[in-house]
Amino acid sequence: MASRVTDVYLNAITSTRGSVIESNDAATLGQPEQDCERIAAKIGIRSRPIASADEYTSDLALRASELLLPVANGFREEIDALVVCTQTPDHLIPGVSSVLHGKLGLSTSCFVMDMNQGCSGFIYGAQMLGALIKSGMSQRAVLVNADCYSRLIRPDDLTTRVLFGDAAAAGMFSTTPGGLKLLYSKCYSDGSGYEEFIARNSGVRQDVNVRSGIFMNGPGILNFALRVVPEAIEAALGETGLALDQIRTIAFHQANSFIIGKLAHKLRLRVDQVPQNCETLGNTVSASIPILLQSEMANLRSGDLVMAVGFGVGLSWGVAVFENTVAS
Amino acid sequence: MASRVTDVYLNAITSTRGSVIESNDAATLGQPEQDCERIAAKIGIRSRPIASADEYTSDLALRASELLLPVANGFREEIDALVVCTQTPDHLIPGVSSVLHGKLGLSTSCFVMDMNQGCSGFIYGAQMLGALIKSGMSQRAVLVNADCYSRLIRPDDLTTRVLFGDAAAAGMFSTTPGGLKLLYSKCYSDGSGYEEFIARNSGVRQDVNVRSGIFMNGPGILNFALRVVPEAIEAALGETGLALDQIRTIAFHQANSFIIGKLAHKLRLRVDQVPQNCETLGNTVSASIPILLQSEMANLRSGDLVMAVGFGVGLSWGVAVFENTVAS
Repeated sequence: MASRVTDVYLNAITSTRGSVIESNDAATLGQPEQDCERIAAKIGIRSRPIASADEYTSDLALRASELLLPVANGFREEIDALVVCTQTPDHLIPGVSSVLHGKLGLSTSCFVMDMNQGCSGFIYGAQMLGALIKSGMSQRAVLVNADCYSRLIRPDDLTTRVLFGDAAAAGMFSTTPGGLKLLYSKCYSDGSGYEEFIARNSGVRQDVNVRSGIFMNGPGILNFALRVVPEAIEAALGETGLALDQIRTIAFHQANSFIIGKLAHKLRLRVDQVPQNCETLGNTVSASIPILLQSEMANLRSGDLVMAVGFGVGLSWGVAVFENTVAS
Repeated sequence: MASRVTDVYLNAITSTRGSVIESNDAATLGQPEQDCERIAAKIGIRSRPIASADEYTSDLALRASELLLPVANGFREEIDALVVCTQTPDHLIPGVSSVLHGKLGLSTSCFVMDMNQGCSGFIYGAQMLGALIKSGMSQRAVLVNADCYSRLIRPDDLTTRVLFGDAAAAGMFSTTPGGLKLLYSKCYSDGSGYEEFIARNSGVRQDVNVRSGIFMNGPGILNFALRVVPEAIEAALGETGLALDQIRTIAFHQANSFIIGKLAHKLRLRVDQVPQNCETLGNTVSASIPILLQSEMANLRSGDLVMAVGFGVGLSWGVAVFENTVAS
């Protein structure tokens, strides 16, 4: 038996964000204005959207998805896979994707699942939905990346509070030509570093002797990213036969400007290759790459190549390469 | 471009269970012996393994995986995907799969992710790893189904407490012939029923006016299963061109004997087609089907057909069909 290789397209992306805007300023952080200014300048994050008291991950996921359905190819009834990537689900049982499936009124003939991934979640999601489509198990699959990290951040932990924003992005992957054609994706992991970024007392394990919430080893994550990301990009270029200067846009996970700047410098990238949006969004976890791609897609010409690079909690990382197929 | 269709095999399954055995008796449940006997007889569950105070989902997942690696084909370094299906992760961030990846010492060139699914989790996992393998993105993938529902069950909620056991199963999916060849898989969902089985205050959403823990609409789930499961089995038979009496073993999710009996009756199945193991295991969520398959595999002859049927929380359901390729 033989079959044609199926091409996978990311046709459209939509997004939404938490309803409250929090600034990295003295009034919010309770620190001297001078210190706040120094921090904001270094990380390149001035303000961040945060979920309001009655807003949860399922609300952001629903808003992003409701924006997507009218602009994506095809009909609601044709969606045969809905995957929500989140680390901050409303409930452990059932997943956000179940709530979303019901509220969107999708067909029962649909693969519906939450996946748990952080800052590499868009690459992992693209790989997974790409596999479902290439294997013939799906023709039209929605990936939602949604998180409300603010629920797990201690207000007095400035090392994480100044970084993270709450947002959601929804992307339509399908066999229908249009948008970004997926040329390559590869996911990596190193679980020996799982404690570098961990949310204590967030699951069913309760450790009474530790404070609850997110703990981040910032320097550890920085060193990890500077080590593994260039290697993974090198591998992607080798596999696709491309050179770095042929890539029009490199959509790095928007961890913060400091780390993106270090990566760009190490890889000798041109400034115009490395768009950023974290100044007013912060690090929106797995939604950060699709939100950046959403705005970048408007500027692309047909044939332009785009690389997406995720890295973070797990530890995990991954690279995807797309070719734009729509003339601007 | 053309490519050969890749066959997917479930080569081996291993499992483990919580260290404490809890009986559905008067001493444990605090109810009259007569009532306990009546309940146990109806649901067909006499005792259940429960995680001990210092045992978590990652511990069960690790034990099951460590048993798998020596009996599965190939080498540890060749594992390129590790997916843990759980609804009771130790932490929300990172997933159980990250912890497991580190402790097992697997390669960094590995797709590592948690997926959130309940009683259909084995079918969803088989579909997903099947897609990764068929699309060429993985050659050797481990699926771990692990849960400790006991952490989310209120001790005084006898409607759920008498049903659930804590356990983990690990399965090796690969391109290497041997074991159960995956012929078919299909997943379904109906999110409009997401409140039929829900764990309140288990994620980042805190509702102060409701009690925490699992709430189940038993009759609702029963009616749902009796409605959708026969339809999904019918669809699987239609797609594979098989008749129900050609299937040697139908591995139903081991929800309880009452519901399995109802399904078997409705489908006019022979008793020998419907093995059960819930008497001493209870409902072990997504681990229940692979644990049953593990013991059944020893009794299969080459060419025997096996159907696996999951249904539950989400709501979600699914059917997989396998052909045994090893003579007993």
